[in-house]
Amino acid sequence: MELYSFDQLFGFTRSVFLAIGCSEKNAALAAEVLVSADLRGVDSHGIARLPGYVRLYDHGRLNPNPNIRIVHETPSTGVVDGDKGLGLVVAPYAMEIAMEKAEKVGSGWISVRNSNHFGIAGYHAMMALQKDMIGWTMTHAAPLVTPTFSLEKMLGTNPVAVAVPAGEEPPFVADFASTAVAYGKFELLQRKGMPAPVGWAQDADGNPTTDSNAVKNGGGLLPLGTDREHGSHKGYGLGAIVDIFSGVLSGANYGPWVPPFATAGFMNVGESVGEGTGHFVGAMRVDGFRPAEEFKSHMDNWIKRFRSARAVPGEKVLIPGDPEREFESLRRQEGIPVTAPVIEQLTLLSRRFTIPL
Amino acid sequence: MELYSFDQLFGFTRSVFLAIGCSEKNAALAAEVLVSADLRGVDSHGIARLPGYVRLYDHGRLNPNPNIRIVHETPSTGVVDGDKGLGLVVAPYAMEIAMEKAEKVGSGWISVRNSNHFGIAGYHAMMALQKDMIGWTMTHAAPLVTPTFSLEKMLGTNPVAVAVPAGEEPPFVADFASTAVAYGKFELLQRKGMPAPVGWAQDADGNPTTDSNAVKNGGGLLPLGTDREHGSHKGYGLGAIVDIFSGVLSGANYGPWVPPFATAGFMNVGESVGEGTGHFVGAMRVDGFRPAEEFKSHMDNWIKRFRSARAVPGEKVLIPGDPEREFESLRRQEGIPVTAPVIEQLTLLSRRFTIPL
Repeated sequence: MELYSFDQLFGFTRSVFLAIGCSEKNAALAAEVLVSADLRGVDSHGIARLPGYVRLYDHGRLNPNPNIRIVHETPSTGVVDGDKGLGLVVAPYAMEIAMEKAEKVGSGWISVRNSNHFGIAGYHAMMALQKDMIGWTMTHAAPLVTPTFSLEKMLGTNPVAVAVPAGEEPPFVADFASTAVAYGKFELLQRKGMPAPVGWAQDADGNPTTDSNAVKNGGGLLPLGTDREHGSHKGYGLGAIVDIFSGVLSGANYGPWVPPFATAGFMNVGESVGEGTGHFVGAMRVDGFRPAEEFKSHMDNWIKRFRSARAVPGEKVLIPGDPEREFESLRRQEGIPVTAPVIEQLTLLSRRFTIPL
Repeated sequence: MELYSFDQLFGFTRSVFLAIGCSEKNAALAAEVLVSADLRGVDSHGIARLPGYVRLYDHGRLNPNPNIRIVHETPSTGVVDGDKGLGLVVAPYAMEIAMEKAEKVGSGWISVRNSNHFGIAGYHAMMALQKDMIGWTMTHAAPLVTPTFSLEKMLGTNPVAVAVPAGEEPPFVADFASTAVAYGKFELLQRKGMPAPVGWAQDADGNPTTDSNAVKNGGGLLPLGTDREHGSHKGYGLGAIVDIFSGVLSGANYGPWVPPFATAGFMNVGESVGEGTGHFVGAMRVDGFRPAEEFKSHMDNWIKRFRSARAVPGEKVLIPGDPEREFESLRRQEGIPVTAPVIEQLTLLSRRFTIPL
């Protein structure tokens, strides 16, 4: 493991996106979104994925110069076609439109098709904060999750992010998958040859398992709630909502047809029921409900009250967004740790494009 | 336990609401919303709560003739003040406004304050279906839930309901609490003197427990996910979003300040940071995104594909809304079972208002 500064990783990523043909503006934006995941401690969605985006490009699934455009709209809703662009660029574009609509009519909601993986959901939701808006982002992803009682993988980890502005306090930023855990946690255990806790995945027959390779071996990730008795049908319901809003509303693929991100073994695109991958983003002006200063002062009160809730000894009650903010503050100072296998992959890109890492 | 027809329970409930001074229109609407919960198998939110609504009235917390009105708005957003009315009436009023806004500008989003318990979230979300809209409903409730690492109860069971129209298939209707289980499940176990599964609640020290009285004895309901390792911070995040959208956006109370519903032992309203209980409702026109027939035909495909997913032997993969629809079809034919303790309570109302049960 080595430490890199944000600027180092940002610069490298930007150069790689330039090298595959992205415009200056798009390369910089995509690099910022991608490396913000590393900064915020969501290592699975950061620079570790850069080789995957390049692989998407190599397979003709990524258009480095997309004509991203709105193809259907009302004053507060619409569909954006990402033209096979980087989700890292398509999602902010859609969010800008949602915010323009919110500026005019109070809220804006955009469903996106024909896109690719968009990095961390939280980045896009947080774009709304600077305008005193609540930001809302969802995306579906390739199927890894077995709904309650299913032996087939039908849904992705399908995250939801909601960012809410506060006054003196830092904002509330919830950003979570609709599964018990992120798939990245299994990859970490696989590398170490360690078992997984019961309740994270099921095996090929639908039984509880501690096999950290279960998802690869015919099993599936479990929805948030883990089993029927503990509400897995609720996690399944949430993941299904994300899928329908991202895929069926926009005209993208959905459910088991969502195309895979370009990781080894997950490359082939099969039958199609729509165009590419979809997202759903939205923005609501806080003063579309009550004066912004009033709202933010009550958010401060909400945050302070929850933060001061009596806690289990040795722990504290966190506000959604606290862990990521702590990571960001630490990593801006001390650097971002990158593991040896990721450095190895980045080194290949460095050689291929003659860009120093 | 005895069986009653929908019409019997509806007629009785309507008469009780008339007796406390509701208008003809409001009494009928409130009765329909309340008893639709029994019809759909959500017994905890149906006629079993009628004595509680009357108790709210007796304590001056319920205005039988509210002046429900919109107090702040933009073309696609707004706040409704429920004037201490029955949530059963306030929420449909807010939903109508959301749908009018959606008709005009594509979507409508209403945060509600100064309301009371609104029955099942699914009823209100489903109002949107008849107009080819997606309905979205949330409500917060009195604090029973301990966020991750908290020993204090800070959130209610805070449900989310999303209803999505389909074509030939019945609609997709997800309606779920942001907790591992509904509190009603503990009440059932308490009556039978049975323990609860681990993962539903924690005891007063934050430890796992099987005590079905734990929530009464200083413990708390666990968020969806049950513990940190299985994503309880995600269930906490979802419950917090519902609380902020229902309470902080509208000017209602929020978090631990949400006033209790009038069940025995949960009556007193303490310190206040806003007005009454809040909800959040919304509607989006499907054709604000793509032509409605196209959308509905893809929803049919979504539903058929998920329904036919390979399942664990002896089980099948359900679509959100299937269980409630099966209940409704059965109970319309065979009647709605009402337990002896509930009949006892209803008999008291029957005598007090001289309304035959």
